[in-house]
Amino acid sequence: MTYKLGLLGLGTVGTGVVEICQDPYQRLGLLSELQIQRVGVRSLRKPRGVPLSAEVLTTDLEAVVRDPEIDIVIEVMGGVEPARSLILTAIAEGKHVVTANKALIARHGEELFAAAHKQGVYLLLEAAVGGGIPIIQPLRQCLVANRIQGILGIVNGTTNFILSRMSEEQASFAATLAVAQQQGYAEADPSADIDGHDAADKIAILASLAFGARIDREQVSCEGIRGVTATDIRYAQDWGLVIKLLAVAQRQGEALDIRVHPTLIPDHHPLAGVHDVNNAVLILGDPVGEVMLSGPGAGRGPTASAVMGDVLMIAAHLKSEKTRLNPLLDSPLMEPLPLLPLKQVKARYYLRVIAVDRPGVIGVIGTCFGEHQVSLECIVQKTLYPGAEDGGDQAEIVILTHTVCEKDLQSAVASLRQQPVIVHIPSLFRVLPD
Amino acid sequence: MTYKLGLLGLGTVGTGVVEICQDPYQRLGLLSELQIQRVGVRSLRKPRGVPLSAEVLTTDLEAVVRDPEIDIVIEVMGGVEPARSLILTAIAEGKHVVTANKALIARHGEELFAAAHKQGVYLLLEAAVGGGIPIIQPLRQCLVANRIQGILGIVNGTTNFILSRMSEEQASFAATLAVAQQQGYAEADPSADIDGHDAADKIAILASLAFGARIDREQVSCEGIRGVTATDIRYAQDWGLVIKLLAVAQRQGEALDIRVHPTLIPDHHPLAGVHDVNNAVLILGDPVGEVMLSGPGAGRGPTASAVMGDVLMIAAHLKSEKTRLNPLLDSPLMEPLPLLPLKQVKARYYLRVIAVDRPGVIGVIGTCFGEHQVSLECIVQKTLYPGAEDGGDQAEIVILTHTVCEKDLQSAVASLRQQPVIVHIPSLFRVLPD
Repeated sequence: MTYKLGLLGLGTVGTGVVEICQDPYQRLGLLSELQIQRVGVRSLRKPRGVPLSAEVLTTDLEAVVRDPEIDIVIEVMGGVEPARSLILTAIAEGKHVVTANKALIARHGEELFAAAHKQGVYLLLEAAVGGGIPIIQPLRQCLVANRIQGILGIVNGTTNFILSRMSEEQASFAATLAVAQQQGYAEADPSADIDGHDAADKIAILASLAFGARIDREQVSCEGIRGVTATDIRYAQDWGLVIKLLAVAQRQGEALDIRVHPTLIPDHHPLAGVHDVNNAVLILGDPVGEVMLSGPGAGRGPTASAVMGDVLMIAAHLKSEKTRLNPLLDSPLMEPLPLLPLKQVKARYYLRVIAVDRPGVIGVIGTCFGEHQVSLECIVQKTLYPGAEDGGDQAEIVILTHTVCEKDLQSAVASLRQQPVIVHIPSLFRVLPD
Repeated sequence: MTYKLGLLGLGTVGTGVVEICQDPYQRLGLLSELQIQRVGVRSLRKPRGVPLSAEVLTTDLEAVVRDPEIDIVIEVMGGVEPARSLILTAIAEGKHVVTANKALIARHGEELFAAAHKQGVYLLLEAAVGGGIPIIQPLRQCLVANRIQGILGIVNGTTNFILSRMSEEQASFAATLAVAQQQGYAEADPSADIDGHDAADKIAILASLAFGARIDREQVSCEGIRGVTATDIRYAQDWGLVIKLLAVAQRQGEALDIRVHPTLIPDHHPLAGVHDVNNAVLILGDPVGEVMLSGPGAGRGPTASAVMGDVLMIAAHLKSEKTRLNPLLDSPLMEPLPLLPLKQVKARYYLRVIAVDRPGVIGVIGTCFGEHQVSLECIVQKTLYPGAEDGGDQAEIVILTHTVCEKDLQSAVASLRQQPVIVHIPSLFRVLPD
């Protein structure tokens, strides 16, 4: 039996997919039953890293998704359009679809899943989150008996690389970003990664699958790493904390708390040991407890591994001659669940404050927080700076709160900013409970 | 549609399975379509932690596996017999089987898988390795496009707990084992865990699935942790190494290198951060690279989570009305692959040697190793002991080799033992390459 594949895109990931298909040695026998029928590309003249005959390549992407011989369409071109329209056409033509496109699924997942379910075809997306790390299928199969309580993830390799290097080398954000760009770990326009949008796409997808929830991606609160400084990293280390861009999704009563922001985590926490471009997802379920899945979160080989895992799973189902879809692989039906407003989130906080160096400053700070029900765990004066011409010296003060409500914390900070002794509050980060 | 379950065993794991079935709130809807039909137990009079009506419980285990209404048999009684015979009967009766029984699968997997394949039923075993951590299905599905190169695992919680505590508290093996037994982390008869047999069962299962190989469990080389001392742990720490009971399976040409032994690993290695009773499996595949799956390796909740994941996967397939088995879940067909003899294994080694304190001792040691092609990375004299009545003082010397062949290393050690200046060689461990 031969299963015919149509590939949309022959960039980094597409090339990796072709490489696996062309090299079945010591891999699953079923791989030999796959055949690359058509590959849709932007230019026929660009040199390719894999041998493909001229009649396989085409610039007519519509022809790929409409080819009646193709069983499975693999979308690795990225971007929202024309990927969305092409996938909808492929589904309408009765083809199964495998995609690595997180931006698309985070925004149009509901529409695409509903179309696939109605048509009776699979739409699988293991590669969209965590690159080569098995995350989505373990969540939907091995862990499916669990009541999922929460997911904590380091799901963006670029930001983890930058934060790892900043920590190791006490370097500034700007300098480290430049190095990451030189070494190919960050894009020329790095915004999608460093402002947290890519991580927000991925946690929105994971949350929708884990909680069966329809999630409005635009409502996912998202803060990137531009505000992280070497100073904060050093002070956090003094308290046994490391800084990571954390994607969080958890149940809070009947609402979902989903957000992405830099977070200080205890240095013995399993996520603290995830370095460089690696990704990790920690799943908290009842009754399994904490399970962590980690590994390479991007790149040609890892992403192609995830894509081809999905393709082979579909081929295996076709081979087993099923007449209906397996409910564990069928597109999820999603209920709308409200997102918890950020103001209601409870967390611990780290703040760095620059104040006039004068007796009583600590008292002013303590009073401000106390009046807003923010209880402090620790307050330390770190450094004295020579003051500006018009004033005295300035003190740098670092504060760690107990677990408090974001709303109270923000009120306290607003009130603090009004105090004449407070010059500036350069840093404010959340801290993961121990 | 209702799928009826027959349970063999109502101990820790069986109770956890019933708890999940009886509490579907915020879990997969499919769970509500499962019904516990019969539960085979040893005694009807023992009080149970879960409510089950009297007609469900029975001491007639044969009646469970022959009940014509039962679709899926869950074997969580443990031990080789009568579990093996009961599972074979269940398969012959056309029932799907889910088991958590690593000792059984490691010894009789081939027979049981062949019977299930022939009968056209599933035999799933996620819970047999790594408790609640998704390992077997990710290996057989998400990672199935990979050529698996190797697996490194910490797959026994008891030994990992003991080694973690010995490291933290500089305590002896015997004292720490006693504490582990008091706290319920080690059995009264701890041999299966601390002598490495349980880990060998698990790595034999993983290797057979990863490499499609028929593995003679009795040939898997297996060394436990009784020989690990607080002294070695301290010296290893001086070199940035931590000690773990590692289960290894990797391809070496056409043979498989499978073994379990205490291993020194660099303290920044991902497996070095797996503490206490946690388990982790690191899978090295082409093209995915290194993926690590970690979490609770035993216990009621985690193991029940894995068992019920398998049960729901089978129920999902039944619901999709497949006419044949899905090849990715069907019992693996195994080819015989030879095991690499331990003598041909290449590794780095750590040795601790007690010698007479005399000039030239280091020279004697260096010459012994050199004559057997064992190249040394480091040799350090640690401590002087007052000698016995009949001799002078004794020196403790610690040695780290480069990567060498086990055969050469053993010859060098044999020759070293013949040297009059060598009193004793108390410790010899393998070291994981950096």
